Amino acid sequence: MDEKQVTALFEAVKQGELSVADAVSRIRALPFQDVGGFARLDHHRSLRCGFPEVVFGQGKSPEHLIHIINQLNQSTEKVLVTRLAQEAYEQIKDYIPAEGLYDPTARIYRINRSTETPLPGILVLSAGTSDIAVAEECAQTAELAGNDVKRIYDVGVAGLHRLLAYTRELQQATVIVVVAGMDGALPSVVGGLVDVPVIAVPTSIGYGASLGGIAALLSMLNSCSSGISVVNIDNGFGAGYLASIINHQSIHA
Amino acid sequence: MDEKQVTALFEAVKQGELSVADAVSRIRALPFQDVGGFARLDHHRSLRCGFPEVVFGQGKSPEHLIHIINQLNQSTEKVLVTRLAQEAYEQIKDYIPAEGLYDPTARIYRINRSTETPLPGILVLSAGTSDIAVAEECAQTAELAGNDVKRIYDVGVAGLHRLLAYTRELQQATVIVVVAGMDGALPSVVGGLVDVPVIAVPTSIGYGASLGGIAALLSMLNSCSSGISVVNIDNGFGAGYLASIINHQSIHA
Amino acid sequence: MDEKQVTALFEAVKQGELSVADAVSRIRALPFQDVGGFARLDHHRSLRCGFPEVVFGQGKSPEHLIHIINQLNQSTEKVLVTRLAQEAYEQIKDYIPAEGLYDPTARIYRINRSTETPLPGILVLSAGTSDIAVAEECAQTAELAGNDVKRIYDVGVAGLHRLLAYTRELQQATVIVVVAGMDGALPSVVGGLVDVPVIAVPTSIGYGASLGGIAALLSMLNSCSSGISVVNIDNGFGAGYLASIINHQSIHA
Amino acid sequence: MDEKQVTALFEAVKQGELSVADAVSRIRALPFQDVGGFARLDHHRSLRCGFPEVVFGQGKSPEHLIHIINQLNQSTEKVLVTRLAQEAYEQIKDYIPAEGLYDPTARIYRINRSTETPLPGILVLSAGTSDIAVAEECAQTAELAGNDVKRIYDVGVAGLHRLLAYTRELQQATVIVVVAGMDGALPSVVGGLVDVPVIAVPTSIGYGASLGGIAALLSMLNSCSSGISVVNIDNGFGAGYLASIINHQSIHA
Amino acid sequence: MDEKQVTALFEAVKQGELSVADAVSRIRALPFQDVGGFARLDHHRSLRCGFPEVVFGQGKSPEHLIHIINQLNQSTEKVLVTRLAQEAYEQIKDYIPAEGLYDPTARIYRINRSTETPLPGILVLSAGTSDIAVAEECAQTAELAGNDVKRIYDVGVAGLHRLLAYTRELQQATVIVVVAGMDGALPSVVGGLVDVPVIAVPTSIGYGASLGGIAALLSMLNSCSSGISVVNIDNGFGAGYLASIINHQSIHA
Amino acid sequence: MDEKQVTALFEAVKQGELSVADAVSRIRALPFQDVGGFARLDHHRSLRCGFPEVVFGQGKSPEHLIHIINQLNQSTEKVLVTRLAQEAYEQIKDYIPAEGLYDPTARIYRINRSTETPLPGILVLSAGTSDIAVAEECAQTAELAGNDVKRIYDVGVAGLHRLLAYTRELQQATVIVVVAGMDGALPSVVGGLVDVPVIAVPTSIGYGASLGGIAALLSMLNSCSSGISVVNIDNGFGAGYLASIINHQSIHA
Amino acid sequence: MDEKQVTALFEAVKQGELSVADAVSRIRALPFQDVGGFARLDHHRSLRCGFPEVVFGQGKSPEHLIHIINQLNQSTEKVLVTRLAQEAYEQIKDYIPAEGLYDPTARIYRINRSTETPLPGILVLSAGTSDIAVAEECAQTAELAGNDVKRIYDVGVAGLHRLLAYTRELQQATVIVVVAGMDGALPSVVGGLVDVPVIAVPTSIGYGASLGGIAALLSMLNSCSSGISVVNIDNGFGAGYLASIINHQSIHA
Amino acid sequence: MDEKQVTALFEAVKQGELSVADAVSRIRALPFQDVGGFARLDHHRSLRCGFPEVVFGQGKSPEHLIHIINQLNQSTEKVLVTRLAQEAYEQIKDYIPAEGLYDPTARIYRINRSTETPLPGILVLSAGTSDIAVAEECAQTAELAGNDVKRIYDVGVAGLHRLLAYTRELQQATVIVVVAGMDGALPSVVGGLVDVPVIAVPTSIGYGASLGGIAALLSMLNSCSSGISVVNIDNGFGAGYLASIINHQSIHA
Repeated sequence: MDEKQVTALFEAVKQGELSVADAVSRIRALPFQDVGGFARLDHHRSLRCGFPEVVFGQGKSPEHLIHIINQLNQSTEKVLVTRLAQEAYEQIKDYIPAEGLYDPTARIYRINRSTETPLPGILVLSAGTSDIAVAEECAQTAELAGNDVKRIYDVGVAGLHRLLAYTRELQQATVIVVVAGMDGALPSVVGGLVDVPVIAVPTSIGYGASLGGIAALLSMLNSCSSGISVVNIDNGFGAGYLASIINHQSIHA
Repeated sequence: MDEKQVTALFEAVKQGELSVADAVSRIRALPFQDVGGFARLDHHRSLRCGFPEVVFGQGKSPEHLIHIINQLNQSTEKVLVTRLAQEAYEQIKDYIPAEGLYDPTARIYRINRSTETPLPGILVLSAGTSDIAVAEECAQTAELAGNDVKRIYDVGVAGLHRLLAYTRELQQATVIVVVAGMDGALPSVVGGLVDVPVIAVPTSIGYGASLGGIAALLSMLNSCSSGISVVNIDNGFGAGYLASIINHQSIHA
Repeated sequence: MDEKQVTALFEAVKQGELSVADAVSRIRALPFQDVGGFARLDHHRSLRCGFPEVVFGQGKSPEHLIHIINQLNQSTEKVLVTRLAQEAYEQIKDYIPAEGLYDPTARIYRINRSTETPLPGILVLSAGTSDIAVAEECAQTAELAGNDVKRIYDVGVAGLHRLLAYTRELQQATVIVVVAGMDGALPSVVGGLVDVPVIAVPTSIGYGASLGGIAALLSMLNSCSSGISVVNIDNGFGAGYLASIINHQSIHA
Repeated sequence: MDEKQVTALFEAVKQGELSVADAVSRIRALPFQDVGGFARLDHHRSLRCGFPEVVFGQGKSPEHLIHIINQLNQSTEKVLVTRLAQEAYEQIKDYIPAEGLYDPTARIYRINRSTETPLPGILVLSAGTSDIAVAEECAQTAELAGNDVKRIYDVGVAGLHRLLAYTRELQQATVIVVVAGMDGALPSVVGGLVDVPVIAVPTSIGYGASLGGIAALLSMLNSCSSGISVVNIDNGFGAGYLASIINHQSIHA
Repeated sequence: MDEKQVTALFEAVKQGELSVADAVSRIRALPFQDVGGFARLDHHRSLRCGFPEVVFGQGKSPEHLIHIINQLNQSTEKVLVTRLAQEAYEQIKDYIPAEGLYDPTARIYRINRSTETPLPGILVLSAGTSDIAVAEECAQTAELAGNDVKRIYDVGVAGLHRLLAYTRELQQATVIVVVAGMDGALPSVVGGLVDVPVIAVPTSIGYGASLGGIAALLSMLNSCSSGISVVNIDNGFGAGYLASIINHQSIHA
Repeated sequence: MDEKQVTALFEAVKQGELSVADAVSRIRALPFQDVGGFARLDHHRSLRCGFPEVVFGQGKSPEHLIHIINQLNQSTEKVLVTRLAQEAYEQIKDYIPAEGLYDPTARIYRINRSTETPLPGILVLSAGTSDIAVAEECAQTAELAGNDVKRIYDVGVAGLHRLLAYTRELQQATVIVVVAGMDGALPSVVGGLVDVPVIAVPTSIGYGASLGGIAALLSMLNSCSSGISVVNIDNGFGAGYLASIINHQSIHA
Repeated sequence: MDEKQVTALFEAVKQGELSVADAVSRIRALPFQDVGGFARLDHHRSLRCGFPEVVFGQGKSPEHLIHIINQLNQSTEKVLVTRLAQEAYEQIKDYIPAEGLYDPTARIYRINRSTETPLPGILVLSAGTSDIAVAEECAQTAELAGNDVKRIYDVGVAGLHRLLAYTRELQQATVIVVVAGMDGALPSVVGGLVDVPVIAVPTSIGYGASLGGIAALLSMLNSCSSGISVVNIDNGFGAGYLASIINHQSIHA
Repeated sequence: MDEKQVTALFEAVKQGELSVADAVSRIRALPFQDVGGFARLDHHRSLRCGFPEVVFGQGKSPEHLIHIINQLNQSTEKVLVTRLAQEAYEQIKDYIPAEGLYDPTARIYRINRSTETPLPGILVLSAGTSDIAVAEECAQTAELAGNDVKRIYDVGVAGLHRLLAYTRELQQATVIVVVAGMDGALPSVVGGLVDVPVIAVPTSIGYGASLGGIAALLSMLNSCSSGISVVNIDNGFGAGYLASIINHQSIHA
């Protein structure tokens, strides 16, 4: 029910072309969602979960992926496919736009024709080298969303001096994403060193009592440091997307 | 930065082989030289967990509480005591500053002599009336941190139209905190309606398979909506503190 | 935005008392939820969770309970308060309508001035005598919702012949609620004997590895019998409400 | 012990062909289960778990599947094989009735020679596209059970307006099945919009803290909306079967 | 449907006093459970869960307990009330048979007028002194069931020589019940020393990661020793009852 | 330290061939375990976990299996290999005794040259056809241990009359093993019909909230029927071994 | 079977006072545990779990406590009662030795008449002030076991500089106990700074997703730092006892 | 240590107002001055997690492994690669130093050019033969760290006499590592026999309710024996590393 349609109804009633009863009945027949300010939601939330420009690649058939990617490529200037395993990419690469880039570590395929200037401010940390896959999913998502992302990897708490060597970088960021598996202790330490939002991403890296990332998740949720919030295990995309929102509405943007 | 290296630097300076400025610069390049900037951390993080101005009241003896509160009151202009049950407050109220306000719902005692103008932008939602205690802990923490907080309570997804009636308020916020127990579904719906950071706070409200808030926590971590992150069950303080950080560094601040 | 309001707007435009632009603007200012077919939702869902006529008594203060009950009593012909412990009832009984009935087993207080004829069809079974509290919460909820409820208690699978003695009653019901704690095995057996919907309610009755009802809940979710669905642990209200919906739309209603 | 057999016994005694003692002894020798009203159970429950016409295909050998399907096909007019992976189907398709239809999404093979008119009333919703496999298992089960099933897919709560566009369909259904993974929030929202039974089906879609569907399951069990009950994770068959029972005994049937 | 009733029916048909049709109809009206061999079940299972002679005292009101105990006392020669806390006993002791014995450790009240000779063969072990309450519930249950029970307490694996001092007693038992909390390791060791059935009873004794007895339960279920089976946490009654069954059907009985 | 060795020491001392001090010292040097009555344990427990005659096949290399089986075959008259997958058997079958029998359902390879007469008394039930693999592991273990095992399969509680048709068999057994996955409800029903020990074996059959057999396990531990104890998930061997112990020491043996 | 007894037996045989057969028979009648080197175990393990000198106070009656404490006091020079709540102490303090000291924080009562010189080397850290109760249980246990214990409390990772200020103390310890609740991150950081054994003690301090200490426990078990091992939640006693063993056998002892 | 302070120090040294030694000493006294000693940490902790000489092989690509191993081999005299599956080793063996040894059981590849004399004192026990892989990871880690490791395998509590035969070895060790899956009972028994530190390593060996090692882990954490601490499931490396630390600082070293 956008403004034009409603105005037209009132005009028709005013002109006597439509009875009041018919007008009321037509309003009720309009799709609920078109009412009010929500019509523009589709545009605003173009990078959202389930929305056209972002494709969760895992579990989709090659045919399905090829179809979606090419369709998106015609209507948008950015395409992001996450959780796309190397073997899946190999199967489809000849049928999707060659301008797209594939990164096997992040398992991301992306097309970016945007000419916006990337916004600095996001810092992505990883505790170990095994966490880099998730960290890259986060960083590359944020890059596609228009950010210039700084990365500092392999700075886990077992070797504290490595992290402390980057004090300056920590304090210059607008928002920090901390990716860690196993004990999930890094966000607590980082949260104690900075005064900006810290997004903690537990990873499924570990074995035994790591319970597929549950240990790291619980540790992060129970962090004593303030300013920390947590996303799902291995959810690099979600962290990158949220970091981008915070960064773009920051005073430095 | 071992002893030999440092000694060599001093020797070189003493011998005039190295300028003081160069020596200082070299020290900073050594591991741990970034230590420098941490001296001021104590100041920056004055509202942090375990730091003077914020007291986690639960489990502390009356004597301990009276001592801490009065001591804080002398050195700072803001005091925040969280998780202070009504009975605990009754026991100490005659021995702590009368200018402090106690709210039995939020279980918060606070003193605020700051004259700053509160910053609008934070919106706190609760799914049910039983979630209001946690929502108020969040809102009042954010208020003490210098924010003008808007509240909309009892807008759970079982009565969707109640939430949708506040579309405008949702879209005007800089950051939204969503407090919900039981099914924890509200953040997913809110996250789909806005384009700002959404901080989800699961509460322990519920029974049976709510598992003391674990059901709501898991639901929130698995939200399909983007832009959502989660804090610990019942952690109103943490959400309020994080919301304040995001709000104060926002472009509207 | 109910029909009258919208009609009035169109009439005013037709009469020239209101400009089209003003009419459009007023429509947008009306609460979102009143649009379209949802206006009648408030009426339809009068027994819903969080809606006026049903009060979850647990955790509410005496003052709060007295206020809500009296207010409801003025506007509706049915009042239902669940999870109202005997002690809580004793504290408020002199301040609430004397025509209300309190049942300490079901922990339910209810007022019913409706003159409708109760609809037969609902059968409530309990596995043990300890499950009767939850079974009664279910049965009395369904009664208030206009049903004539049959109860058969203490027919757990450890004494199968007791259950089988009621074969006729089982086969005459339109919908059966089965309340069971401990091993939660009764719904599976009942589901194998009938061809109507079976609503399984796990209870927190048990000890040790019953995990507060989780054992019964899992057993019910994994039932091999078809036609079974499950509600939350101890959720007698939910089962009674759902049974009433199914019964009222049944061919026998 | 069906009616004919018992009648024959009495007749024989009446005719003096059999002594009373022998008759009593023969009754005791008859299989226990054939007594009384249960004889017709086998017929009534022909679509039940473990009963002839429904085959749980997963884990069965090709030889076993071929044998069961062909045997069923001779004695019944409907055959339903669930959880039959595409590879398994390919292995057996040349040895089973060609009139049967296989759907790789639902992983269902079905034969239907029934000429009954399908009964409308069942609506199946899915939150995401990944939930469609389970939704189809549900829908096709209900179709085989004699229903005309309406489907609305990909209407998760992250894009609320998509769901709200189907308000009319929601309010016209007799029973609604809601299939959702991840946060499992959709049933709560749907339950708040309608007044008919809602059967919630959690799916194992998700990762990390979705715990293979446990997060969605817990969320659904804790729904604040009334009228909701839950079946096992990925149990599309169970939901479709239950929906059919409810639909067939509804006043509209 | 006992033999007399059926015989009478046939006789009446034979005599022409009853038509065949009426006879068939009467058979169908008889309670299902009375058919066949099950009539004697009530007698056989007199010590069963939920059956008259055994009362689970926990959670029952004083009035209820007094009523049940006195009623049982009139019809049986043995009465067993388990989980009867000392305070509960104090409240009812003046209103129940004085010949009954109450043991505050086992939380058992029992009346035994039987003159049978107790059967030796059952050995009950406990790992610690804190496990004795559960061990006594087991031992006294078995005693009431007609056994002469030997007890060896506080022989946990941390002091192995204490257990090994009782090698002879271990090897002379017909069935051994092993009660243990914390690490639940004792049954594995005992199971390795004997060749008779070992019933393991986990207790809720412990703290932290004992998870209310779950740690001991899991340890026992995973025992490498053969001949071990497990009952619910703190289920001394169940173990004592099962031990009695095994002992009474043993070759030594 | 067997009797002969000790006697020899005393004799030597008596004869003056050995000093008292040397004798004491030699006693201390003897392996601890040979002391006292334990020497015969090795013989008694020949079928135990980890002991020669029983081999847990899963995870062992072909070479290892071939070596163990042939070695055992020379020293004992019975060999039992459990959890031996068909593929593993195919790899080794040409290198192990041809007299051994392999059953792919039970995944058991066994050699039995014993001429003992099998002892009747054990009854093995399974709830579904998918539980038969575990049921056979149990039954064949018990057979090798010298029992004549009766099997009744596919008598789950969803079709109660199928179970009740075997009332006679249930009541004639000395010990009953009940194997069930999914809801694990069968042991509770069986335990209510008989008065002999019931060994419950949960299986990992199921999906979703069956949690790999945990749902069935918890249900069985919480059974209201008495006389039931539980072994680990899928532990057919353990149940068969325990059943054999109970059967062999029964009065009917 | 201590040396004297065995020697006496051999002497008697040598002297002809005892036949060889009788001697062998007497050896077999001696308690098993007295054999060999184990006789001294009782002495060695005098501070062990369940052994005389250490009493787990929780759940014991006042009478029981008074009896044990006074009995121990006569036979040993050290008495340790752990988990003794203040109220419990108040009830018994007039009946136990006045020389004993009670500390309400550690909930420990201890008597120490030993004159040994305490051994330095143990350092006990706590993350927060709420963890001090457990840290003191640890420290005071170690003190009673003969150690001079250094404490550094409230040095959680949220304020890293506080911990780093104690670098010297960390590096001088022989063994470090780290007590932490909530995120359990401190042991990982400490383990990265030192090269001595680190014993991690999770505490039940926290709320919500701390799950009574499970979050901290899992985090510690998954620590990436080497040299860390973990004891049960809140097990200050166990950590103090183990630290003492390690310290006393260290090269510095 | 901020810039001004450091500059002032250099100026003072340059001016001759401060000796170099005093300046160095003052730097060490500044906040974070304790930093000083950390430079050597890199050396001390050379065998740590994430540090050069130890490589966690699992999940790394062949190229990555070849690169790291060869690089390490040039700079250190010891290289340790853990969790290196046989197939992974086969792929890289031609490209890595031939002097390295690979053990398929321990899944360890190691190079050791050190000429130090291995230190005796460490004893590694395993409960079953299936636990040997983890036990070897532990033993070989400790060997590379300079220890002479004694192994006693397959001494689980189900056959207690096997363990007791090694009493002497148990009592001669400086530190004992106990590796056990399934019931995890062995450490409790061992802890009761010795007075040295016992490091318990749960393994993922088992099935069903072993929950991938969680059962053994919980059992070990709840051990009643003192002197026991626990590492992560299957963490043989961590246990071997910790054992080496304890052994090297022991009085016998």
